[in-house]
Amino acid sequence: MVRKLIQNIMEKNAPVVVGLDPMLSYIPEQVKKEAFERYGETLEGAAEAVWLYNKAIVDAVYDLIPAVKPQIAMYEQFGIPGIIAYKKTVDYCHGKGLVVIGDVKRGDIGSTSAAYAAAHLGTVTVGGKTYAPFDEDFATVNPYLGTDGIQPFVDVCKKEDKGIFVLVKTSNPSSGEFQDRSIDGKPLYELVGEMVNRWGEETRDGAYSNVGAVVGATYPEMGRLLRKVMPHAYILVPGYGAQGGKAADLAPYFNADGLGAIVNSSRGIIAAYKQERYASFGAEHFAEASRQAVEDMLADIRPVIG
Amino acid sequence: MVRKLIQNIMEKNAPVVVGLDPMLSYIPEQVKKEAFERYGETLEGAAEAVWLYNKAIVDAVYDLIPAVKPQIAMYEQFGIPGIIAYKKTVDYCHGKGLVVIGDVKRGDIGSTSAAYAAAHLGTVTVGGKTYAPFDEDFATVNPYLGTDGIQPFVDVCKKEDKGIFVLVKTSNPSSGEFQDRSIDGKPLYELVGEMVNRWGEETRDGAYSNVGAVVGATYPEMGRLLRKVMPHAYILVPGYGAQGGKAADLAPYFNADGLGAIVNSSRGIIAAYKQERYASFGAEHFAEASRQAVEDMLADIRPVIG
Repeated sequence: MVRKLIQNIMEKNAPVVVGLDPMLSYIPEQVKKEAFERYGETLEGAAEAVWLYNKAIVDAVYDLIPAVKPQIAMYEQFGIPGIIAYKKTVDYCHGKGLVVIGDVKRGDIGSTSAAYAAAHLGTVTVGGKTYAPFDEDFATVNPYLGTDGIQPFVDVCKKEDKGIFVLVKTSNPSSGEFQDRSIDGKPLYELVGEMVNRWGEETRDGAYSNVGAVVGATYPEMGRLLRKVMPHAYILVPGYGAQGGKAADLAPYFNADGLGAIVNSSRGIIAAYKQERYASFGAEHFAEASRQAVEDMLADIRPVIG
Repeated sequence: MVRKLIQNIMEKNAPVVVGLDPMLSYIPEQVKKEAFERYGETLEGAAEAVWLYNKAIVDAVYDLIPAVKPQIAMYEQFGIPGIIAYKKTVDYCHGKGLVVIGDVKRGDIGSTSAAYAAAHLGTVTVGGKTYAPFDEDFATVNPYLGTDGIQPFVDVCKKEDKGIFVLVKTSNPSSGEFQDRSIDGKPLYELVGEMVNRWGEETRDGAYSNVGAVVGATYPEMGRLLRKVMPHAYILVPGYGAQGGKAADLAPYFNADGLGAIVNSSRGIIAAYKQERYASFGAEHFAEASRQAVEDMLADIRPVIG
């Protein structure tokens, strides 16, 4: 799957991913009105608003971008109807040729991790039939439980040609509380990075592996180090834009081949119309504002990788 | 919520929780047959089998136990129908007076963690209406992202009188890869334990806090240390039974008051009928086998806490 991701990135000259993390507060009134007229002020209504909003944004930007990253928490908060909207979004984005990174941050052990891997990347067998329940292309995974938690995902990645991004150094202010602590002279994130490298050996597909890593844009020095520690890992970089990461900070995350990283922006794209900069679009044209924000992000990032 | 949990534990003299982690391979043929006749060999059929199986087991054991711990991965693997069965199980167990620990191991940052907390423990507002989407009583949470990931859960726990169990030392063989690594002379799990203590200060309700911890039964010496590090945390103890933890290993997880820990068994209870020991029940009487296994577990554990 990393091969398909790279192909999409190269075709569109766009090492970016749009985070589909819809909050109701981002969604323009006219979209909510349409959804609530259909389903009332219910979880179904909220899910419909999320879906209409996503669809409009995806329609407006899909030709510019290689991938999307729906954040499942934002759907899960609307219960079952929310998860139905998540799945609808995954399928719709596939129909548009996009790689779908399920930002699910799952992680457990043994048969439980295997169940999560089956749910999001693999298949389950029911009697004589086989189903792919959520069928994302990549999933984000938490490493705290060690190899027992990761290996079931790696096994599914090998079998189904899918991928994972393991949390290594997250973009948030308190990520250092544990991740930066020094162990035998190395920070924990570096040890996790070394393990990502090891977990990825079995799933190399060309220069890169189907086991990637999450490293926040807000810590470029750590990005530089981790780039060296995990030469074959694709790095998913959150934290650009709304969280404070700047384009100039992104260079260390890329390899000399101009590949190796994909930069996420969520709020900065999907709620662009709320920014001063895009205010002229108005809430009516929120999707066009998102398209302009993607174009501006690309113009900002492309020079960094030459 | 820890108060309600303790009340249930004391009423039933049972510091145990039954893990509702159904795998299709555990479910007797006659239950699968009934479900597949109704819905075919589909995800809906699998979810129905899971639900029928859970319901029979809960009906057979609810009067003996204070709490259940459904493992959401086992439901998520059946897609949307699986998650509907999860929610049905949560609601059914509430109807039986049980405390429900959602074993979801979620964890993210900021507004995303807040969305998970709302989904599982709190409420969301849609227009003028408010909903509690999954409405478990406790959720398990992953600490790798630090305070930014935990605080949104703590906030919801305070507002809604709910609780969390933070992963500190997990029961799996590779849990030591990161959790046991030494930082300034202390293992990482101890640092996480210290943070659990700090996160829990705001939600003390009597001797215990609504912020608890997960510490595996398979590491009793670490349990002894962590009991001291987190005097007010309730400890959820997985790994008893099928994973190899013995009753004699459990004493260090309890406080002198005979409280402070709740021991989970999943496969050992719900798939008891598959064990040599309970084979005489037969697959037809799988739920009675589960009841006997709960009684045997209680007889095994009660002497440990005096």
